[in-house]
Parts: sequence; structure tokens; C-alpha cells
Amino acid sequence: MNTSTETLARIRCHGGWLHRIRHHSSVLDCDMVFALFLPPAAENGDVPTLWWLSGLTCTDENFSSKAGAFRLAAKLGLAVICPDTSPRGTDLPGEHESYDFGSGAGFYVNATQAPWNAHYHMYDYVTKELPALVRALFPLSDAEAISGHSMGGHGALVCALRQPGRYASVSAFAPIAHPTGCPWGRKAFSGYLGDNEADWATYDACALIAEGRSKQPLFVDQGLADNFLAEQLMPDMLESVCQQHDHPLSLRRHEDYDHSYYFITSFIDDHLRYHARHLGLSPG
Amino acid sequence: MNTSTETLARIRCHGGWLHRIRHHSSVLDCDMVFALFLPPAAENGDVPTLWWLSGLTCTDENFSSKAGAFRLAAKLGLAVICPDTSPRGTDLPGEHESYDFGSGAGFYVNATQAPWNAHYHMYDYVTKELPALVRALFPLSDAEAISGHSMGGHGALVCALRQPGRYASVSAFAPIAHPTGCPWGRKAFSGYLGDNEADWATYDACALIAEGRSKQPLFVDQGLADNFLAEQLMPDMLESVCQQHDHPLSLRRHEDYDHSYYFITSFIDDHLRYHARHLGLSPG
Repeated sequence: MNTSTETLARIRCHGGWLHRIRHHSSVLDCDMVFALFLPPAAENGDVPTLWWLSGLTCTDENFSSKAGAFRLAAKLGLAVICPDTSPRGTDLPGEHESYDFGSGAGFYVNATQAPWNAHYHMYDYVTKELPALVRALFPLSDAEAISGHSMGGHGALVCALRQPGRYASVSAFAPIAHPTGCPWGRKAFSGYLGDNEADWATYDACALIAEGRSKQPLFVDQGLADNFLAEQLMPDMLESVCQQHDHPLSLRRHEDYDHSYYFITSFIDDHLRYHARHLGLSPG
Repeated sequence: MNTSTETLARIRCHGGWLHRIRHHSSVLDCDMVFALFLPPAAENGDVPTLWWLSGLTCTDENFSSKAGAFRLAAKLGLAVICPDTSPRGTDLPGEHESYDFGSGAGFYVNATQAPWNAHYHMYDYVTKELPALVRALFPLSDAEAISGHSMGGHGALVCALRQPGRYASVSAFAPIAHPTGCPWGRKAFSGYLGDNEADWATYDACALIAEGRSKQPLFVDQGLADNFLAEQLMPDMLESVCQQHDHPLSLRRHEDYDHSYYFITSFIDDHLRYHARHLGLSPG
């Protein structure tokens, strides 16, 4: 594996270090940047990892700067990795024209349709290539948990449901819970995956729950003042599918909270503690 | 007093509410936006206020989105007000040309020189007009503390040192401690205050300490990997003036920390607890 990387920044934060790293991704065939927060405990040995998958329009920086997560992650001894949300530096037809498709909107799938299939393999990037790279470079154990927001909440649920046993725990903030049934998801999946909707189901949390391959508990927070609630996120559908298929779900609905990072920062500590518990860390 | 205002946003955060408010400022003769975080305790009565003065290029939004302060402020029962850093919507000659003078760089002084004296009265804005406005509109007690970063750290120190007894406590992150002796300050003060350096001293923390009007303790955090440390911030000068004039100072130097919000978020809880203690709040 080519582990040649460039450190863009190494920033002291809460006694740990926030790294911003550029590297060449083989599966995406472009250069990518990711952020990695290493807690102080990483100076004394390998630490477990929380994957954070971000939402539409985000880069590696949104969670780092706005979530307020590193205070508790430092205390818990949890590394946090924030990948970018799509291939970058490419210039496919229409790639940069809309906020919900193309750049900033990779949807954590492996595209099968031209021209997207030349680069848009975000599922393989976040589940294979990047994990191998960061473990080769940093003191990270094999233990992983995964979370994310909106498009990244969808990504977190799908990564976990497709790979039973891989992540110690999975959670999501305001996930796109049923992408094959909402405008954002249908636009993205038809573009990346083509017209056969049967292919789409392999990246749809509700469909994967119905399929029943995994029974891993899901922990989901959803704001009730979220502008995208009914049309794009569909938590009621998630809840109903979980009930129907006896899939363990803890879905918390929060009155007045919106879709922004002010919502995420309000509840991120609960998620960090949840993952720390499943990763066997002391509660901090 | 004209208290006509427009609520731009009202965002649920950590059980409290973050307000973004637009209003017409008489002392600045322009429309301004500020942010106010109200903790849950504000639902049951008046709460004390922490003023946060931001640094060069900032608006009311930087601290709100990046400091991670509202978690503990909510718990402590502390309101936080973030004013903007200069008049806005004006178009004076050269006002928007540099990051360290004019818009985004009001330096919390009352300008005496044309054309700046038509609008740039940020000292009166943050110490008089805005306090009166927010107390008229929101459940805030008279109790106040003040803090800030860089140019805003300078502002916080100067507001407190010029008004003995007003603020229960004052703190700063990486303040411009001796503006009359550094390039940022000399550029700003000569533009806003003119060529008579005697006038500058009334807005210089080190000069005010030497003058001895106030003996209020100062709590200052400074990162040692801060790019602006020696040339612009001059904490050694602050320390030496405090020693010379027997002014109480707690100056913490933090190895590896830079000038960014990653530094602020790492130590903001210490500042919030410091102010809460001086404001008589329970330690949270």
C-alpha cells in the first residue's frame, strides 16, 4: 500500500492532536483530505476509532470545528476520523452544479454508472482504503464505531448494517433513513447506481433492516424542527421498519432542534459515551 | 430607547436558545447583528451575562459555532453575548481593504478621526448601547463578566480596566496585550485615534495597568505555538507590567497551542467556570 501522505495541519486540541492529512486515494483515483483527532491516550498505545461521516456539502472540517466533540473524545481516549464527503479535484460533467449530487454528495456508495464509476467509490473508501491507511500511519486499534449526520447518518447506518460485526456500535444524527424513498436519495442513487431500483436497496437502511442480515442496535437522534424531517429523513419509516422486523432501535425525537451542528453539538456527548461503552472504554 | 429588532434565527442548543438579532445601532449609525445564548435557567428568571468579544475578521458567529461553550454555559446558567467586531453595511474609503483595519477590525475603541468617527464607536457599542438593549429585551440580570480572543481579548481587558467594578471578572485568550506597541494596534489606533499617542494609551491594557485605576485580577491563556505571539500579542510585556505594578495576573502558557478556535475550545470551560464563580453561580 502506498502510504505517502502530506500533513496539512497538526493542531493541538484538548491535550490531543488534530491532524489534517492529504493522500492519494486509489479507489477514488484522486487526492483526498481527511481529519483525524488523536486523544492523549494515543501517546501510550493504540486507541479505538470513531468514524464520523458528514452530510451534504461538508468536508472533513465541519465536524472538527463545530461539533465540540474533542473535549470528551480526549477524555474517553477515542480517536475520531472525519473523511471528506466525495472525491475532489475531479471535473466530471455537472459534478459541481448541485449541492445534493456530485462533489460534496458522494452518498457513501460505490457508483456503477459512467462517468461517476471512475471516481465515486466512497463506500470502499470509508470502509476499506482509509481504515487501512490510518491504521498503517497512526496508533489505532482494530476497534471501530461509526456515526454521522444526515447523508453521513445514512452512510453510518448502511456501513454498519452491511457489515454485521464490524463496528462495535453505530449511531446517527438526523440520518437519511430511507434514501430510496426520498428526493435526495432517489436523485443520488439513480445517478450513481442507474435505473434498477433493486441495486439501490443495498444502500438503504430501511431495506437492509428488512433484509435482516444484521440485528445491531441503532441509536438515532432526530430534531423535530428539522426542515428536512418528513420529506428527506423519514425517521417514522425507520421506526416502523425496525418494529416490523424486530430490529433494536433507540430513536430520540428532540422538540425544537433543527438540522444544524447546534443540534449535533447538543447531543454528541451522548453518542461519544454510547460508543465508548461499546468499545469497552471507561465512561470518562 | 428604540428596541426595534429583527430575529434572524432562534436555534435550540443544549437546552437553551441561541438568538441572532439584527438591530439599528445609534452609536454606530448602522444595522448590526449580535448573537445571544440564553441558558435554560433564563426560563425561570434573570441570568448573568458573559460578554465575548471576538477577534479580527470575526462576526457574531465564530464563537457560537466553534467554541463549544454553550454546553457548560447551559449547565452553569450563564448567558453569552457575542457582538460583531465592527460597524457593518458602511462603505468608508478603504474600509474593506485589509483584514486588520476597518470592517471586522473595530478594535473596541471610539474613533475620533474622520471618516471613522462617523461609525466606529465600538467601545460605546459593547459597553453601553448593546448592554442596555439586551437587558430591555431578554431576562438578563445586571451581573456581567467579559472575555474575548486576540483583538477581542484586548477589548475585554480594556473594557474591564477602564471600568473598575463593572464586570465581576475578566479573562482573555491570546489578547493583543499592548496594542500601542505592536503593528496591529499601531495601525488601528493611528487610523481611529490619530497621531497623538497619548490618546492611544487609554485603550492599551498595559498602559491602563500602569496607570493603576483598577486592580481587578486578569485571567489570560496564551498558546506558545501562536504565530502572533511575540510580534502582536506580547504576553511577556503584560506579565512584566503586572509584576511591576503589583497587578494580579494569572497567565497560563500552553505549549503547542496555536491562535485558532481549537485553542479556545480547549480551555473555554476553565474560563466559563472562572466567570461563573465570580458571578456567584454554582460550579456546574
